[in-house]
Amino acid sequence: MPDLWQDAMDHAVTLARKAGEIVRDALQNDLKIMCKSSSVDLVTKTDQNVEQLIITSVKEKFPEHSFIGEESVAAGESCVLTENPTWIVDPVDGTTNFVHGYPFVAISIGFAVNKMLEFGVVYSCIEDKMYTARKGKGAFCNGQPLQVSDQKEINQSIIATEFGSNRDPENVEKIFSSMRKVLCLPVHGIRGAGSAAINMCLVASGCVEAYYEIGIHCWDIAAGAIIVSEAGGVLMDVEGGPLDLMSRRVLAANNDIIGERLIKEIEAFSALRDDAPVNPIT
Amino acid sequence: MPDLWQDAMDHAVTLARKAGEIVRDALQNDLKIMCKSSSVDLVTKTDQNVEQLIITSVKEKFPEHSFIGEESVAAGESCVLTENPTWIVDPVDGTTNFVHGYPFVAISIGFAVNKMLEFGVVYSCIEDKMYTARKGKGAFCNGQPLQVSDQKEINQSIIATEFGSNRDPENVEKIFSSMRKVLCLPVHGIRGAGSAAINMCLVASGCVEAYYEIGIHCWDIAAGAIIVSEAGGVLMDVEGGPLDLMSRRVLAANNDIIGERLIKEIEAFSALRDDAPVNPIT
Repeated sequence: MPDLWQDAMDHAVTLARKAGEIVRDALQNDLKIMCKSSSVDLVTKTDQNVEQLIITSVKEKFPEHSFIGEESVAAGESCVLTENPTWIVDPVDGTTNFVHGYPFVAISIGFAVNKMLEFGVVYSCIEDKMYTARKGKGAFCNGQPLQVSDQKEINQSIIATEFGSNRDPENVEKIFSSMRKVLCLPVHGIRGAGSAAINMCLVASGCVEAYYEIGIHCWDIAAGAIIVSEAGGVLMDVEGGPLDLMSRRVLAANNDIIGERLIKEIEAFSALRDDAPVNPIT
Repeated sequence: MPDLWQDAMDHAVTLARKAGEIVRDALQNDLKIMCKSSSVDLVTKTDQNVEQLIITSVKEKFPEHSFIGEESVAAGESCVLTENPTWIVDPVDGTTNFVHGYPFVAISIGFAVNKMLEFGVVYSCIEDKMYTARKGKGAFCNGQPLQVSDQKEINQSIIATEFGSNRDPENVEKIFSSMRKVLCLPVHGIRGAGSAAINMCLVASGCVEAYYEIGIHCWDIAAGAIIVSEAGGVLMDVEGGPLDLMSRRVLAANNDIIGERLIKEIEAFSALRDDAPVNPIT
């Protein structure tokens, strides 16, 4: 029996590569000729261009499929995951990196059916690394199989996390407090690529043992989540229990031992869910 | 008149590339077949091999020159910068990254005469980026000229820094406190490549506006320092005033405005100088 979603996955890889070209082109040409103060407009324009490219192509090829994309949601579209085959897309993950030319910028395309992830594609376009995973068939980077780290000792581990873009003092307090407790476990180090999708691919590649963050969106982590699990890793909530894609919280680890150890140190907080009604009836 | 030190610089580039091959080879072959717990031995072995390669070759070609290298100093050699032409070498900068296969690992070769840096070579060997700078002749990455960011607004900037390897509670307190104040200026983000040499090259490339750290050594920053200044950037101490290569403290910025703004937020502390007597007469 042919793989039902292989066709969609192949298309996602093609789209991610095309999108990567647009992003690289914007970085190499447009960003250089503009002053930094207007670079925020460039990222918005590039984000929208890339998302439009992907939506248009997906709708043409798979007219029955649903779509959740960062820019569409920003423009008022719904962000509710249904049973329908759904593309979950971040056209440019790592927008701050993009604005500054910092070398971690990714196109992230996840695909879920019956609310379960079927495949994920993350294209780190400046590094030219194409990460892919198909449910039950493993995870790959540029065709090479990925495997999480076999480390079980937290004090031999590197942990990825981010300060995030939230500057609310209460949340900043918790973010710093968690980071400090993790650092002083101690661990080998703390890193952050500035892209959730790439942080998850670094877990899948075994370069870091775990990644956690509060405040990310479903489109930042959908593709990365299946790449991590197909590379042998685990996904959970920052307070334990299964990952909830819409909860704005994620913990990806090489194994349960490292994951559970981190949960004890993380001071969790809540963020407004991705699937919260935009105008709740009061 | 021929450039007096061009010959030495050309040799440094050749050595950095050879060293990078050894490091990549160790990463691709040895690291994969060993369990993570013995990877610290691999990094030590690779560090020593690379430094030996560089020392041997330099001594053969430039027998009158002096040498300051991380491994030599660890083995008890002196770490005092004299007027003599001196190679200042970190064979593997980003050793934690190396152990984990995190993609920022560099060979750093600085060269000073009369205590002034004449050239610097930083080879980011996993990315295959060769950064070079010669006094008065500009800075380059793989032959392309480098230019620092023209950003003057701190709240539009990315700042690079590291948690470092010091886990002394008082210093950790100051490191976190500084980082938090910098984040809440606010800035666009905080990043850390896990390699001082590469952080400095990111300043030179305009990807981050500034980098500061306390606890680094002269061999981590000697090459990067001249790469930053030749790319148009500035170097200072974390409390202001000129950079002191032996002080274990560095602030590299795209311009004085960003540098001076950061100084106000950094809670400085002292580290034992690189050129402190090993057995001080009490």
